[in-house]
Amino acid sequence: MLILVANLGSTSFKYKLLDMSGDFESANASPDSRVLARGAVDRIGEPISQCEVIVTRSHQGETFREETQMPVPDHGVAVQACLDQLTHPENGCLKEANEVAAIGFKAVHGGRKSGTFVVDDEVLEAMDEMSAAAPAHNPPYIAAMKLLRQRFPELPLVAAFETEFHDTISPERRTYAIPAEWTREMQIQKWGFHGSSHRFIAERAAEVLGRDDAKIISCHLGGSSSLTAIDSGKSIMTTMGMTPQTGVPQNNRVGDFDAFAIPLIMQRTSQSLEEVLQTLASQGGLKGLSGGMADLRDIESAASEGNADAKLALGVYTEEIRRHLGGMMVALGRLDAIVFTGGIGENSDVVRAAVCSGLEGFGIELDASKNDGMRGEGSLHTESSKTQILVLPTNEEWIVAKRSLRALAAQ
Amino acid sequence: MLILVANLGSTSFKYKLLDMSGDFESANASPDSRVLARGAVDRIGEPISQCEVIVTRSHQGETFREETQMPVPDHGVAVQACLDQLTHPENGCLKEANEVAAIGFKAVHGGRKSGTFVVDDEVLEAMDEMSAAAPAHNPPYIAAMKLLRQRFPELPLVAAFETEFHDTISPERRTYAIPAEWTREMQIQKWGFHGSSHRFIAERAAEVLGRDDAKIISCHLGGSSSLTAIDSGKSIMTTMGMTPQTGVPQNNRVGDFDAFAIPLIMQRTSQSLEEVLQTLASQGGLKGLSGGMADLRDIESAASEGNADAKLALGVYTEEIRRHLGGMMVALGRLDAIVFTGGIGENSDVVRAAVCSGLEGFGIELDASKNDGMRGEGSLHTESSKTQILVLPTNEEWIVAKRSLRALAAQ
Repeated sequence: MLILVANLGSTSFKYKLLDMSGDFESANASPDSRVLARGAVDRIGEPISQCEVIVTRSHQGETFREETQMPVPDHGVAVQACLDQLTHPENGCLKEANEVAAIGFKAVHGGRKSGTFVVDDEVLEAMDEMSAAAPAHNPPYIAAMKLLRQRFPELPLVAAFETEFHDTISPERRTYAIPAEWTREMQIQKWGFHGSSHRFIAERAAEVLGRDDAKIISCHLGGSSSLTAIDSGKSIMTTMGMTPQTGVPQNNRVGDFDAFAIPLIMQRTSQSLEEVLQTLASQGGLKGLSGGMADLRDIESAASEGNADAKLALGVYTEEIRRHLGGMMVALGRLDAIVFTGGIGENSDVVRAAVCSGLEGFGIELDASKNDGMRGEGSLHTESSKTQILVLPTNEEWIVAKRSLRALAAQ
Repeated sequence: MLILVANLGSTSFKYKLLDMSGDFESANASPDSRVLARGAVDRIGEPISQCEVIVTRSHQGETFREETQMPVPDHGVAVQACLDQLTHPENGCLKEANEVAAIGFKAVHGGRKSGTFVVDDEVLEAMDEMSAAAPAHNPPYIAAMKLLRQRFPELPLVAAFETEFHDTISPERRTYAIPAEWTREMQIQKWGFHGSSHRFIAERAAEVLGRDDAKIISCHLGGSSSLTAIDSGKSIMTTMGMTPQTGVPQNNRVGDFDAFAIPLIMQRTSQSLEEVLQTLASQGGLKGLSGGMADLRDIESAASEGNADAKLALGVYTEEIRRHLGGMMVALGRLDAIVFTGGIGENSDVVRAAVCSGLEGFGIELDASKNDGMRGEGSLHTESSKTQILVLPTNEEWIVAKRSLRALAAQ
């Protein structure tokens, strides 16, 4: 059973083709061995688009890479181009396009339709209801899904919503202190996101720790970042809220902010509400703090050279992670492991050290010599640390593929 | 030296007259003994207002209470009525109105003028700049101060801003991840409020604990609530932000909220931004969650009878307090004491027990038998608890009077 897991941008289509045959539920240790091919189409809608495919022939230990340039006016043509590459008689890995059982999407916000579903009119409608809360994510997904349903009516599309893993959060921790009818009628609540990544960490950490009842804080730190408190495999608290804009600061997005400051900003800048939110969502975060650097690697480099704005950006980012980490420690009552994942979590010694700094009193002890240069799966804590500190590379596509298979089976 | 400490509402004027002679800096244990008189004028601007004064003759152990009804068209007339009552030949406590050295105000938001200042044009201008961030607080203060300067030109007015105690918070913990120029040019940052209360707790807790280097979390829980992390007497983190609307939920105000949910609410309710914010600031908090109950006592009572909305309100309130408490534990690195104060903090066994629940793993152990029914100053922790859990009644007027004297002396 092959699942094509898609990652959609408004002008891009990235995918991995995963082989989900056999026992896949407990294969979290090496999900990458299931990847038959991956590829990307960029600049969709421009006169010339870029199509790339990398096919892995695992039995021969070789890979084939093809890059073509052609006009790709929309996501339907992009998917067709991908299928053509995958079924190429010499270099492809498929005989027929219909070997692909489904396209699985890491969809963002379905509101009331939180879960993993074969895409139908109701799913699209639920996503549309949330478009105002996820304007950068939902509209391109909806448009692409509608188009693909027309072009490939035989190919099931599955939406694995990023909110699903957080469905286990209690009402006390997911409800805003707003009029009760707003929560009921508009589904304004802390939905949480990055669910596929946090679920992978929950599953893999349980394997690494050798227990199902572990209390874990999963720190997914990357271009966008969130933390999730996991108790016995279930999300009990997360940093993102009604939208993916809240929580810790992101590369260019603000994170937690005081909504009541908006009228003053509008008054002084003469910007509309829409413009202010757009600025907060594109010119904030690390980029806003540092005066233009959205990539943490640039910020770390500038900070080490004494750049005050870069130091402040790094400081605000790590302090906000620590603030949320503490809230989750209290919610869990005990902390068996802190897990770092995502581009920053897997690669930044500096951020990991800052997050864990000064927490010896709570039984959290980072071993600097293990942390320095740690990449890939590993542990960073001292022998006496009560809390394990782990780095676990995440694999969101693996979770989307697994959830997609379940949704297909349930249909 | 007598200071009249004023608490202004748009249609009310409450005050305490404090005797600040002798050594007042170390008199935190019994500040109430310094109160010569207190009073209130309500319904200012209505055809008939209510004026009340209570004069304490401490040397005789008796009090005199007078209540009159008269038209009080504005705050100037209100202050004159108070001074008339205080200088009443038989029942007053003053010979001459000019024995009052100053009126001290617990002013809310001066933005760049954070501190305690004799009110002048610059102070009023700074408050006006922040009116859009504190629309319920700043405009009535500015109007009343302007009027009082005209009517009582010889009587100094002092503004002790609620943000002052938080001036020691580091840039890393006070800066939002917004464009750097918004922070610089508009003073959009986490200012924090309830400064007089948290400062009183810092001073009194140091006395009770017998050390100046204590690490404390002050939980001011009442009609409005905030937490502050205090290290060696200084604020290092607080829950309120640019405005007093953020942080933990308030009686009828939302607390932390996702600003990016606002467009969806506007779309669905057809409300303007101003209306949505007004709803969040007046129909949110405990009131919104519980379906109309803004008073925690009513909510506790309803919850104990099984009312689901009241239970949820109580749960969201205490979970949000716990979330912020945890963030502060991480910032402090060690926790010597949790202090409960304010109307709820001093009187709600239920909230105190819920906040401290399940934290034994971090050395925080509440003794239920001490907590039950504890009112006034006392301790609630077990003998083995590493963290002391204290109830300390706050006294904001005392701090305002002390800061006002300093500001007068500095002039």
